[in-house]
Amino acid sequence: MKIYQQQLHLKERKRGFHLITSEILQALPQLSEIKTGICQVFIQHTSASLTINENADPTVRKDFETYFNKAVPENDPDYLHDDEGPDDMPAHLKAAMLGSSVMIPIRNGRFALGTWQGVYLCEHRNYGGQRSLVITAWGE
Amino acid sequence: MKIYQQQLHLKERKRGFHLITSEILQALPQLSEIKTGICQVFIQHTSASLTINENADPTVRKDFETYFNKAVPENDPDYLHDDEGPDDMPAHLKAAMLGSSVMIPIRNGRFALGTWQGVYLCEHRNYGGQRSLVITAWGE
Amino acid sequence: MKIYQQQLHLKERKRGFHLITSEILQALPQLSEIKTGICQVFIQHTSASLTINENADPTVRKDFETYFNKAVPENDPDYLHDDEGPDDMPAHLKAAMLGSSVMIPIRNGRFALGTWQGVYLCEHRNYGGQRSLVITAWGE
Repeated sequence: MKIYQQQLHLKERKRGFHLITSEILQALPQLSEIKTGICQVFIQHTSASLTINENADPTVRKDFETYFNKAVPENDPDYLHDDEGPDDMPAHLKAAMLGSSVMIPIRNGRFALGTWQGVYLCEHRNYGGQRSLVITAWGE
Repeated sequence: MKIYQQQLHLKERKRGFHLITSEILQALPQLSEIKTGICQVFIQHTSASLTINENADPTVRKDFETYFNKAVPENDPDYLHDDEGPDDMPAHLKAAMLGSSVMIPIRNGRFALGTWQGVYLCEHRNYGGQRSLVITAWGE
Repeated sequence: MKIYQQQLHLKERKRGFHLITSEILQALPQLSEIKTGICQVFIQHTSASLTINENADPTVRKDFETYFNKAVPENDPDYLHDDEGPDDMPAHLKAAMLGSSVMIPIRNGRFALGTWQGVYLCEHRNYGGQRSLVITAWGE
């Protein structure tokens, strides 16, 4: 069994949902050496998250932003943690709902994703800055 | 360390939440050869998802359907992605909230689930068709 | 490749969100023997969950409790599963939204968490009792 680990620094994205599948693949060329395995992608932040969803129609990613802004409102007077601005506490909550990592099976040196699946960076802050990922893949 | 991977095609289920623990176990007979390990179950779709929850009272699964239909409404006029019907965009959102994979520890050749835990297929479309899973288990 | 697995029984916590990173680390001293790997923490319950979020300001954890109580209301007359009290069905729903496990990359014998990341036990019941975790770490 082999294991590979790589850090990936993503350039700053605007608030919203962004496809990053190809950046992950480029960061891990050793993937091709794994016949059967798993790849974990982990984000080292608490106000951005990762999920897997549709990789084709960009309106899906826009609707994600619309929906989560309604489901997790800014400026709720009950929030206690509000020093860093109205987008801060909702960003933490959205990050927990979507999750800090995705796990993708590997088959024959490739991601065994469905036809319509891609990895999203979910940027929940207005100015989130660069985001750091840790990519770990193992298998044989 | 051993690793096993298996594809499983689930028959079409109606919209809602369905227990599939026993189907997963049947698809992976090699599980019994792993003393200490992990099993990942991954769904290759963006409008259905997987989660772990109560395996006993079927009303829990009905309440899941009721709750998520309220929390992620159909026919929101703000949705841009609506060509495939009113259940489409909510299905993508529910899938992201619940997740595309579950990870179950293995101990002595069995799933180390709690007494009340089972794996749910969460079918978010009215007519989702067959669903494909990739099951990967590793350990020693 | 090595793999270690450990059960951890957490003492009863009150309803809310609690940092448990240090308890996990104490339960798995073998972590220091893994240079590159992954640690999975799994909760064997369906009315409590695990997530990763901010480890510093305690008001973040209070706002998590406030938000999830609004997003998943008690006493919805549409719930069918209500024999165990008003906090029961919401607990199952919150647990599914947040998830039954977290996966943390390991680098040089330590968790490769971001500066502000910690592991939360999310206790969704009023009287949840002790909670059992299964901690599994693998790598080389």
